[in-house]
Amino acid sequence: MKKMILFGVLLATTGFTMFQQKKRIIFFGDSITQAGVQPKGYITRIGEKLEAKGIKEQYDLIGAGIGGNKVYDLYLRMEDDVLAKNPDIVVIWVGVNDVWHKRTSGTGTDADKFERFYNAIIKKLQARNIKVFICTPAAIGEKTDFSNELDGDLNKYAAIIRTIAEKNNCPLIDLRAVFLQYNLANNKNNKESGILTSDRVHLNEKGNDFVAEEMLKILLK
Amino acid sequence: MKKMILFGVLLATTGFTMFQQKKRIIFFGDSITQAGVQPKGYITRIGEKLEAKGIKEQYDLIGAGIGGNKVYDLYLRMEDDVLAKNPDIVVIWVGVNDVWHKRTSGTGTDADKFERFYNAIIKKLQARNIKVFICTPAAIGEKTDFSNELDGDLNKYAAIIRTIAEKNNCPLIDLRAVFLQYNLANNKNNKESGILTSDRVHLNEKGNDFVAEEMLKILLK
Amino acid sequence: MKKMILFGVLLATTGFTMFQQKKRIIFFGDSITQAGVQPKGYITRIGEKLEAKGIKEQYDLIGAGIGGNKVYDLYLRMEDDVLAKNPDIVVIWVGVNDVWHKRTSGTGTDADKFERFYNAIIKKLQARNIKVFICTPAAIGEKTDFSNELDGDLNKYAAIIRTIAEKNNCPLIDLRAVFLQYNLANNKNNKESGILTSDRVHLNEKGNDFVAEEMLKILLK
Amino acid sequence: MKKMILFGVLLATTGFTMFQQKKRIIFFGDSITQAGVQPKGYITRIGEKLEAKGIKEQYDLIGAGIGGNKVYDLYLRMEDDVLAKNPDIVVIWVGVNDVWHKRTSGTGTDADKFERFYNAIIKKLQARNIKVFICTPAAIGEKTDFSNELDGDLNKYAAIIRTIAEKNNCPLIDLRAVFLQYNLANNKNNKESGILTSDRVHLNEKGNDFVAEEMLKILLK
Repeated sequence: MKKMILFGVLLATTGFTMFQQKKRIIFFGDSITQAGVQPKGYITRIGEKLEAKGIKEQYDLIGAGIGGNKVYDLYLRMEDDVLAKNPDIVVIWVGVNDVWHKRTSGTGTDADKFERFYNAIIKKLQARNIKVFICTPAAIGEKTDFSNELDGDLNKYAAIIRTIAEKNNCPLIDLRAVFLQYNLANNKNNKESGILTSDRVHLNEKGNDFVAEEMLKILLK
Repeated sequence: MKKMILFGVLLATTGFTMFQQKKRIIFFGDSITQAGVQPKGYITRIGEKLEAKGIKEQYDLIGAGIGGNKVYDLYLRMEDDVLAKNPDIVVIWVGVNDVWHKRTSGTGTDADKFERFYNAIIKKLQARNIKVFICTPAAIGEKTDFSNELDGDLNKYAAIIRTIAEKNNCPLIDLRAVFLQYNLANNKNNKESGILTSDRVHLNEKGNDFVAEEMLKILLK
Repeated sequence: MKKMILFGVLLATTGFTMFQQKKRIIFFGDSITQAGVQPKGYITRIGEKLEAKGIKEQYDLIGAGIGGNKVYDLYLRMEDDVLAKNPDIVVIWVGVNDVWHKRTSGTGTDADKFERFYNAIIKKLQARNIKVFICTPAAIGEKTDFSNELDGDLNKYAAIIRTIAEKNNCPLIDLRAVFLQYNLANNKNNKESGILTSDRVHLNEKGNDFVAEEMLKILLK
Repeated sequence: MKKMILFGVLLATTGFTMFQQKKRIIFFGDSITQAGVQPKGYITRIGEKLEAKGIKEQYDLIGAGIGGNKVYDLYLRMEDDVLAKNPDIVVIWVGVNDVWHKRTSGTGTDADKFERFYNAIIKKLQARNIKVFICTPAAIGEKTDFSNELDGDLNKYAAIIRTIAEKNNCPLIDLRAVFLQYNLANNKNNKESGILTSDRVHLNEKGNDFVAEEMLKILLK
């Protein structure tokens, strides 16, 4: 009898523990991530895919995207929007505006400062034992003849992120690489948008699904 | 008895020495401040003016200027270059590059981020009981017909700094205001440089002396 | 027979009178002028004011504004949009985009090229005995504390236009000067728009009326 | 008497021969072409290569490059610097500054205006029966991992030039294509300069020789 009770207590404890173990993932980024929590957004799609695998209840997915954000915007709001929510995992996806704003408002981010703020964010997260996944910026234009105006600079910042991933031991979700690969195969007419994006930058339905798929490959590895 | 006297003397000496302990002032800024420690630089001139007043030994003047720095560069290096040196006073003079880099490299600083990083620096310094003086950016061009290309934006950032000074209770050294006043009186030919600057931005000999004088007015108030 | 002669004389007189009296004025510019032909636009208002003075029938007012135009856009389309229509008078109003596009798309106009293309347009018009009136760009922002971001550059280009007017003997409609004057008197709260513009650049109803009035002062001098 | 006739025939023949043989080629461009007439510059090298082939005396090579020129600078000075010199052939090489100035001074050239001014230059030259050869811009950075900041935009303008060449029936010297090809083969370490350029844009000795060779391939076809 005593053993049964003990067993019940153990079971309850374990169950409780499992409930407690629900992994909280925060997706930390810009307008692309802000849109990710909408009905067909990539974060919503990740939830649906987890559900299809029967493991939805193990995860708690939170979107923390704000339009126009650059790396130092993430830095400035990480206390409130990330650390205060005690995530187990943070997926950082930033970089498009750091490049784009050079052209549109003269306030892009210097490459060396981009790296410094990115590293500072990772250090603070890792110091709290948060697992950090990082993504390269996917696209500003989907043309496949290498004539998207900001391709060169975007490739430069993507390369910086790949180095950051390696140095900080962060799993890399190389969206820039897979977007390029997908476009080379599926954008034969060299269109500037409409393949994975609706407007050269933000994801269309296919793009949201594609990103969800790519992220899960790495997140569930 | 002898011991007591000796002890008293020691105590008095130590006390006096401690009281006398030099006030450490760090000048924290960009290339203008980097040049400030040179033979005729404004920091050197402040030293000479303090000497003329017979109070040089009360101060320890340190230049912490790095060319090209914007407000978030100061933020990123304040631990190493300011806090580690335990200053009593910090004079922050930054802003020219935050505006100028919009034109020259597409990496100026958004006005709202300028304010946030500036406030973050002040908060960290004040939390250590460091007295913070802040300056408005002096000039990018000395023309007096209001046709210096970046005047409007520079006035905008100067206005932000005046608000920051008020909100954080920091004495303001309004270099932009006094430069304009001086130029209106002394630059009748509407020259773009050569009055207080050598190249529209960096100080010539007169400019260094002028800045030294204006800073001392506020520092010794 | 007499009647026939009289009729012929009348016809000739009328024809001559009509030919003599109907002065064709083309307003040549950017989006501000494009909007000028709308119901409350400044060109429409000029027509109404001419009507109030009873001299409307002496003028034929034509709008030739295209959004986003810079000085070299005017140069490129002047054959089709101006010369082909045989105007007596051309009012050129350009410059806002030459300055603004530096910030928004990196494709503003160098000051020296601005002057060269402007002069080239005037030379071609004057070679056809067309009377040319030129305007300074009015505003990009209506703040009165000199902190509109592009004020300095706009003042620089306005100064270039004043020089062009003098050198080419073109009557000057100095909209920048009168806008500033009006705002200093009427924009006590330092608003960035809403006084003479709806959005810092384009004219609101008051602005359209104000411009019509200022243009007529010079056109009818 | 016979001698006189013979002399006259000789004179006429020589004159005719000289007139027939001496083809005047003007190289019309920016700082790269300005440097092309220097001792090891690409125009000088073309002369040397023509000499080696024994056909130097058939050509008169003239450099007409000015630092910082964009397409509309060429347009503005083509009367004085090209047409006035009655060339048989004009080689136009422009585009680097049209892209680069977007970043460095906010005064690059809109893609559609680039095309319009380029076409206008060609039309004027062809109307004089001048044979026009056109070149794509070679490089702003020699990295081979597609991370030169302005690669995307440069590819875009190069694509525009290829279309212009086809539409106007101008032989194309596709320097961008051959530079990329050469760098992929010879710049294994992904250096940003030092392969064909000295500073990412201007030609080093190898680059000048390479351009001379590529131009001759098309010029002598």
